[in-house]
Amino acid sequence: MIIDKLYESVKNKSIVCVGLDTSYEYVPENIAKGLSISEAIFKFNKEIIDYTEDIAGIYKLQIAYYEAYGIEGLKAYVKSLDYLKSKNLLSIGDVKRGDIAATAKMYAKAHFESELATDFITLNPYMGFDSITPYLPYLKSGEKGAFVLLRTSNPGAKDIEYLEHKNRPLYYTIGDALEEMGSNLKGECGYSSLGMVVGGTYSEEAVEIREKYKNTFLLIPGYGAQGAKAEDIRNYLNDFNGGVVNSSRGIITHYKKHEDGENKVGEYARLACKNMVEDIYGKEK
Amino acid sequence: MIIDKLYESVKNKSIVCVGLDTSYEYVPENIAKGLSISEAIFKFNKEIIDYTEDIAGIYKLQIAYYEAYGIEGLKAYVKSLDYLKSKNLLSIGDVKRGDIAATAKMYAKAHFESELATDFITLNPYMGFDSITPYLPYLKSGEKGAFVLLRTSNPGAKDIEYLEHKNRPLYYTIGDALEEMGSNLKGECGYSSLGMVVGGTYSEEAVEIREKYKNTFLLIPGYGAQGAKAEDIRNYLNDFNGGVVNSSRGIITHYKKHEDGENKVGEYARLACKNMVEDIYGKEK
Repeated sequence: MIIDKLYESVKNKSIVCVGLDTSYEYVPENIAKGLSISEAIFKFNKEIIDYTEDIAGIYKLQIAYYEAYGIEGLKAYVKSLDYLKSKNLLSIGDVKRGDIAATAKMYAKAHFESELATDFITLNPYMGFDSITPYLPYLKSGEKGAFVLLRTSNPGAKDIEYLEHKNRPLYYTIGDALEEMGSNLKGECGYSSLGMVVGGTYSEEAVEIREKYKNTFLLIPGYGAQGAKAEDIRNYLNDFNGGVVNSSRGIITHYKKHEDGENKVGEYARLACKNMVEDIYGKEK
Repeated sequence: MIIDKLYESVKNKSIVCVGLDTSYEYVPENIAKGLSISEAIFKFNKEIIDYTEDIAGIYKLQIAYYEAYGIEGLKAYVKSLDYLKSKNLLSIGDVKRGDIAATAKMYAKAHFESELATDFITLNPYMGFDSITPYLPYLKSGEKGAFVLLRTSNPGAKDIEYLEHKNRPLYYTIGDALEEMGSNLKGECGYSSLGMVVGGTYSEEAVEIREKYKNTFLLIPGYGAQGAKAEDIRNYLNDFNGGVVNSSRGIITHYKKHEDGENKVGEYARLACKNMVEDIYGKEK
């Protein structure tokens, strides 16, 4: 199952999820010169991938960055995914789709079957669990996985996710149902292919979620730019597995912090990954 | 403001929102013959638009149906939008995007500025109100509008939207905040450019929402296939305005109910629109 592949990749490489949230503005002139937007974004991503593939457990592409440039941007999305596939590297399409019935089936077709397909996608549960069930046959097959938004750590998370329901935050009502749904989607590694997105910022609740949903693999955004610290993040992980920690700008624009950065986008992305590994694992890795 | 344009369009044409949820499988052989997927889907949509433009208040494109065919499908999305724009017809991109911060800004760029841009988009509020605020500058400018998922009528709506919070369904907590947010986005028609998606099936709560959120324009899915009846829908409208009622398959695949349908896709879509108008307005229109 795909979740076993992810488990192995995290074990052999690291919990680092490289976020290819590539704005065209991030691509330095020496890479972009003479290229179309899609070629430039792809060339930038390719360099990042080439320099990080032995460290990154998985890659996450935030599709908004590609949609922003219309068809041209989505061509870069497709090319980047093709490149990851050609290298047998794992991918998350951070699409946060949320819809039901025939529409959800079309989204599944798009993001699990078409040229936009990734190994994992992110989903938004607002409309209810019938916005998740249409994806389950793909998970059941073993080929695909999903991470459902559960508890994020943006300021607005208090507006809905943290509202009180039955004397506890609402997200537990959702989490309980998801854990149950994933119980027959478990791989040999013990985790299910139906994961959850859990923000990296507040530690106490994170530990509670980690302990409560033992079968659930976590996608943890927010390292670096969004403020999640290494000591918090260690609490989300089981022996440095059972979750991946995303960093996007912190890795792909790390070159900007160095005077010679524009000529060494890949090298500095690699350095940022290495720093992140050391920060989270300590010296032991 | 765009909401005034929509108000006028509904007044002059009708509350009918034609859902261009065009699966390639819907396109009959005589239209698709010799064409690429994107050309075939566009030709189908063009015929529907040509035959319904004097009745439909607005058109809604469910982007999942286009994403399902990858880049090729999205080309049909772009071409259909270009065609609507060339005829000065209004569009909703049913994208249900939901994300925050820099990512939300990229979605706004995609769906309000790029070739994927529509007049209105749908949004998912799960992550909180900071998943809505990045779009407000576009609404404030008068050029664009949004419909936020509030209370849908799929079976799963009970899982989150209807959960009890402070002795009332959760969606009121969201609705109150959205109505407030929209209060400085009102057009001359009295409605704001920040609308809500409210499912068409259960009448009592619909009336309550309609009365409570007086400034809010509603996008009402679920007519026909999903079971919302005309008498229910009339309760959502203020003198046949202040909302649009979507029908997708009921209109665009109406041709399938007729023996000579494959040669008259547009004519039968028009007939379905006319039937819908008569059903909802009664004979008075």
